[in-house]
Amino acid sequence: MKTHSESIGIETKGKGTYEITDAVEGIVKRSGVATGIATVFLQHTSASLVIFENADRSARVDLEQFFERLVPEDTDYFTHTSEGPDDSTSHIKMVLTRSSEVIPIAEGRLQLGTWQGIYLFEHRRSSHRRRLVVSVIGEERRE
Amino acid sequence: MKTHSESIGIETKGKGTYEITDAVEGIVKRSGVATGIATVFLQHTSASLVIFENADRSARVDLEQFFERLVPEDTDYFTHTSEGPDDSTSHIKMVLTRSSEVIPIAEGRLQLGTWQGIYLFEHRRSSHRRRLVVSVIGEERRE
Amino acid sequence: MKTHSESIGIETKGKGTYEITDAVEGIVKRSGVATGIATVFLQHTSASLVIFENADRSARVDLEQFFERLVPEDTDYFTHTSEGPDDSTSHIKMVLTRSSEVIPIAEGRLQLGTWQGIYLFEHRRSSHRRRLVVSVIGEERRE
Repeated sequence: MKTHSESIGIETKGKGTYEITDAVEGIVKRSGVATGIATVFLQHTSASLVIFENADRSARVDLEQFFERLVPEDTDYFTHTSEGPDDSTSHIKMVLTRSSEVIPIAEGRLQLGTWQGIYLFEHRRSSHRRRLVVSVIGEERRE
Repeated sequence: MKTHSESIGIETKGKGTYEITDAVEGIVKRSGVATGIATVFLQHTSASLVIFENADRSARVDLEQFFERLVPEDTDYFTHTSEGPDDSTSHIKMVLTRSSEVIPIAEGRLQLGTWQGIYLFEHRRSSHRRRLVVSVIGEERRE
Repeated sequence: MKTHSESIGIETKGKGTYEITDAVEGIVKRSGVATGIATVFLQHTSASLVIFENADRSARVDLEQFFERLVPEDTDYFTHTSEGPDDSTSHIKMVLTRSSEVIPIAEGRLQLGTWQGIYLFEHRRSSHRRRLVVSVIGEERRE
């Protein structure tokens, strides 16, 4: 059993989904772990993680539209707006999605379903440098 | 320390919650792990995982009703409808719940609370074969 | 590689967010694990976990207000109300947030972002004793 950890830095350019599947898969490969788990953790409170449909861009457009309408920037009772109208909305969209995910590994690869991709979901209008930590735990050879 | 992994296949028959607690507990038992964690991962983007009240069926009815109203099939701005009106709604309901869960193990058993059950939440109208991966990591004897 | 597990008990006094970061960090420290992961699991279905902005109380006020409006107590179609009007709403708010989180550990500390705190999100009006399980898995020395 071993553990291996690496960070991923990603530059976001406004609201939307940014795929990170290949970056996570690369860390799994470098870890040498054949059987175990990969955990993904995002170190921010105004962006989040989702595992989502990776085949059709329209699914992600609908997702983004849905969140804009569920947590609109012009919500009149929000008080936490010191960083602009996308301040509280960003935190709430983050809470409604995820900060961490755990994905199984077999034969040295992430066991994602056919249509699953891992995405960073940026909730801020402006560009941000986001940081994720991927931790891999498992055995180097299959038993 | 060891790792043990098994898949669960489950046939769903339309929208609703399907309990998988016993299937996960069975894998924990077969793993021989006494102290550690079990991770549950669903390999789909139109169904999801929830840990939910297991005692009273009415709680799950309210949950399902709430999600139908929060993300209605007839939402007029959805564009990802190639697989029918439950296409984008399924993905969004999935994002609002979970793809992965991690549950602690002690004395060889899942440390769920009294009222907690693990459920697959199917968001599609039609029957589907769903696949989950359960990974168990831990020690065979308590320290 | 080792695993270490402890419970946290917390008394809640009505709806709101209760920070548990220090309690989780204390368990990581006592575990002796330098590199690995900490998993946090809440053993209840009417409270939940969120990783949230820890600097400005107004962000948490907005979060709580948002959830009150998204899942109002007086929702007319709820049937699971045997424990009062905050019964089904509590379960649904829990489902929209999280039961488990996984946080990476490096140099013996949780790798939280600058503004991230771990919170128990209580959805019940009355006081409750809540129980969490923190499991730490990893290596005692860095490789």
